[in-house]
Amino acid sequence: MRTTELPLVVVLGDQEPPLLDRVKDRARLRRVGEADLAEALREADALLVWDFLTEALPAAWPEHGGPRWVHTASAGVDRLLFPALLRSGAVITNSRGVFEEPIAEYVAGLVLAMAKDLPGTLDRQRSRIWQHRETERVAGTRAVVVGGGPIGRAVARVLSALGLRVALVSRTARGRDPDFGRVYGFGELAGLLPDADWVVCAAPLTDETADMFDAAAFARMKRGARFVNVGRGPHVVEADLVAALRDGRLGGAALDVFRREPLPPDSPLWTAPGLLISPHMSADTHGWLEDLAELFLANFARWTADRPLRNVVDTTLGYVPMSEAPGGTPHTEEGSP
Amino acid sequence: MRTTELPLVVVLGDQEPPLLDRVKDRARLRRVGEADLAEALREADALLVWDFLTEALPAAWPEHGGPRWVHTASAGVDRLLFPALLRSGAVITNSRGVFEEPIAEYVAGLVLAMAKDLPGTLDRQRSRIWQHRETERVAGTRAVVVGGGPIGRAVARVLSALGLRVALVSRTARGRDPDFGRVYGFGELAGLLPDADWVVCAAPLTDETADMFDAAAFARMKRGARFVNVGRGPHVVEADLVAALRDGRLGGAALDVFRREPLPPDSPLWTAPGLLISPHMSADTHGWLEDLAELFLANFARWTADRPLRNVVDTTLGYVPMSEAPGGTPHTEEGSP
Repeated sequence: MRTTELPLVVVLGDQEPPLLDRVKDRARLRRVGEADLAEALREADALLVWDFLTEALPAAWPEHGGPRWVHTASAGVDRLLFPALLRSGAVITNSRGVFEEPIAEYVAGLVLAMAKDLPGTLDRQRSRIWQHRETERVAGTRAVVVGGGPIGRAVARVLSALGLRVALVSRTARGRDPDFGRVYGFGELAGLLPDADWVVCAAPLTDETADMFDAAAFARMKRGARFVNVGRGPHVVEADLVAALRDGRLGGAALDVFRREPLPPDSPLWTAPGLLISPHMSADTHGWLEDLAELFLANFARWTADRPLRNVVDTTLGYVPMSEAPGGTPHTEEGSP
Repeated sequence: MRTTELPLVVVLGDQEPPLLDRVKDRARLRRVGEADLAEALREADALLVWDFLTEALPAAWPEHGGPRWVHTASAGVDRLLFPALLRSGAVITNSRGVFEEPIAEYVAGLVLAMAKDLPGTLDRQRSRIWQHRETERVAGTRAVVVGGGPIGRAVARVLSALGLRVALVSRTARGRDPDFGRVYGFGELAGLLPDADWVVCAAPLTDETADMFDAAAFARMKRGARFVNVGRGPHVVEADLVAALRDGRLGGAALDVFRREPLPPDSPLWTAPGLLISPHMSADTHGWLEDLAELFLANFARWTADRPLRNVVDTTLGYVPMSEAPGGTPHTEEGSP
């Protein structure tokens, strides 16, 4: 970082993040929208990608110079791994530690809602129809959770706590995982799908995981199985999902992420049978913006002290490797899980 | 039981229970509706109350004689504790062991659905509205579960597994509960309500628990707290609940049981703000009828062998005391939990 004056931290976002005034004596903070991004980046020492759904960065990234550190208020970094940024050598950090547990609760809620046909109950309530039905147990059913990072692991933990039998699928198979015993590799997914009652995608978006859930994957799934995506939209070939729901291959699905967000009003997804649509909110519980800001501020303190940053993304892998100590939420002590 | 011929087992219900033909060589089975009940009971050795929502029994019970054993395909026995049956000295057994875990899953689903505003998400989906909202964590919130029997305990266990801080409230306070440490007494409920984010009623219906949730109880609850009833309708003063929802005292509620079932179409409950209505189905998962039949058949085998019945109701208490070994589901070995 430049030492002659306070570092310039560019904050990309239409909304003002909370808590940042805590560092106003240690940084020049400049919040910009997408229109002013390119000009601001040329001078920036660091970039906080607060509006993490932006797609403006590749076009705005300067040919020379630019921020040495990019922090994103998201878990996924797929929107940051474009050639110019990678070439620049900037360090990328993410917000691991904020999203895991909320997303896991959200997935548990979706699974239970589908098993207990809560949407069907709400439909009948609107028409004042009293119609008893039998529903499903979740305990004893089988779930495949794709994504061996902190989010997938949190999802697997909460589903296990509800009595589901969970197979965790990750980029790298592991024979002796401390939490899950065996972790399966992506190459084993096809073999796991036919036995799964629930398939949950909580993976980072990489070349390897894009379009992972397509017609071939859905065709391998058990008739009536359910699919949940809390990863990224491009994990799913959406037309194939609609087809699998329409022909009854899948018994239901829930998407919290989409190839285009906001989901366009004319998307066939809105009315696909048995499909639950939520607007990319699975991680976002009260206080999440403060948690995100705290996480950034903790890394900012490290950065200004020339200490190693937390949650550094391996730009070859496309995510923060599990071998790095977890970033921790602002509510946990540094180094605790 | 009479030994001169096969015992007469009267089965009350409009639907044929599964599996009963297994004992057709050991019993005369006579299935009746409410109209034929009185006449059938005069000759009956045993009564299986398959239609456990019936209210026809008090009027149909014979003045003299009558079944020596009454088994109900329900957990609650409130409909059986009428004077003539109590005077007759008939042994009453219930279906403990079938409902606990399904109800616990159902409650977990309701709690998560409310925390994550799933009803609001479904509403918006119908109108193709993409509207991000912040939702709530359930981990770390406080729940009070009323009902220290197997259902309440199962509910408390699953909510604890989701990270909620659960206080279990039972008829009898206990200082050293093997699962929950301390169990609170009914007299302590009023003191617990102000701190609870969630209040779940899973109690048996007795004189002590009827009308337990009235205006006074709701007034003690934290503003915005949620209430769930999977016990019996008369636990709740329904007009008081509607008022508490309308004035914002309660942030939401879910009822699976009602003072009148089916809930009449003109009930104000259908449209009370934030109230989820389900048709007495929390326990009823695929296979439940088979599980109920197996439980009856296991007790029938004990009865014909003059062995002690399982799940014997203490008619003074109004439920099966916890000190009796659990009845076990058909899928577990006798005597296992």
